[in-house]
Amino acid sequence: MKRLIVDMDDVLADATGQFIKIIKADRGLIVDRESLNHKQEGTGFPLEREILTGYALKEMFFRSMEVKENSQRVLEKLNRQYELFIVSSAMEFPLSLYEKLEWLKEHFPFLHWKQIVFCGKKSIVHGDFMIDDLPHNLETFNGHKFLFTAPHNLQFNQFERLNDWKEVGERLL
Amino acid sequence: MKRLIVDMDDVLADATGQFIKIIKADRGLIVDRESLNHKQEGTGFPLEREILTGYALKEMFFRSMEVKENSQRVLEKLNRQYELFIVSSAMEFPLSLYEKLEWLKEHFPFLHWKQIVFCGKKSIVHGDFMIDDLPHNLETFNGHKFLFTAPHNLQFNQFERLNDWKEVGERLL
Repeated sequence: MKRLIVDMDDVLADATGQFIKIIKADRGLIVDRESLNHKQEGTGFPLEREILTGYALKEMFFRSMEVKENSQRVLEKLNRQYELFIVSSAMEFPLSLYEKLEWLKEHFPFLHWKQIVFCGKKSIVHGDFMIDDLPHNLETFNGHKFLFTAPHNLQFNQFERLNDWKEVGERLL
Repeated sequence: MKRLIVDMDDVLADATGQFIKIIKADRGLIVDRESLNHKQEGTGFPLEREILTGYALKEMFFRSMEVKENSQRVLEKLNRQYELFIVSSAMEFPLSLYEKLEWLKEHFPFLHWKQIVFCGKKSIVHGDFMIDDLPHNLETFNGHKFLFTAPHNLQFNQFERLNDWKEVGERLL
C-alpha cells in the first residue's frame, strides 16, 4: 500500500475562508477571496501578519473551520486504497492541537488517531505522495508532490497541481 | 547534520514514575519500580490497562511528569550537533498534546516548535538515529536504533541499548 500524506489547512479545512470570516466579524472588513490570488500566504489580507497570527492563536479558530467541498467523500475512499496520514503544521499554535484533533474526529470519523501527525516542519515525514498547499512543505518531501490549489499558491508552477477534491479523486483513486 | 529523533515518555519524561505516583495517591497502592522489570509496557502494574489509560487521559498527567536525570544537559548539547526532533506518540491522549508542548517549553526551552512532532504511529518519521523505549517504534525506523532502558524493555536484546542520559551523551556527543 502506498503512503499518502494529506495536509489540513487550505486542503481539508478552509483556513483562508476562516480568516475572511473572522476579519469581517472582528473588524467589519470585507476581503474578497479573489483579491488574495497570487499573493504569498498571509500577505494578501489588509492586515499585518502579526494580527492574523493573533486570530489563529485564539480559541475555536481551528475548531470551527469549514470542510473543503468533496474532501470527506474522496478522503474516505482514499483511506481504503492508501496508507493515509494527515500531517499538519500545528505546533506554532498550541491551542490548535486539541482543536484540530476534535475537528478531524467530527468531519473525518473514519480516520484512526494513528493516522494523525502534528508537527512543526514537514521534512520529518516520508511517504509516496503528498498533497499540500504550501510549496516549502512539498520541497523537502521525498515522494511525488501535489500542490493543492489555494489563492496564495497560484504563482507556483513547479509541482503537479490539484485544483479541488474532485481532481484529487480523479488523479489518485 | 545527521537527524536525531528522541522520544518523550520514559526517555525524556519519567512516565513510569508518574504512574507509580498516581497509583499511590489515588489507590494507596505502593508499586516498586523493580517489580515492573521485564514486563511488557503497562502489564507490570497491579491494575488493568483500562485503568492506567484512564489516568493518562486525565488533565495534568503529562504536564506534571518528572524530567529524566541528565536529559536536559545532554539534549541541549545534542541540539547543537544534530538536526534534533522530539517525536512523541501523543494522539491517543488528546489532552496530552497541549500539555506535552508546555512541558517541553518548560524543561527544554532551547527547543524550537519546529522540532516537535506529535503522532500516532512513528513509522511516518525518518532520520539517521532514533532513541526510544518501545521496540515497536524502533522496528519501523529506517536509521540506527537505540533502545532507551525502561523496566518494560529489559527483555529485548535486538537493539543497541542506552541505559541513561549519561550513556546517550557518551555515545552520541
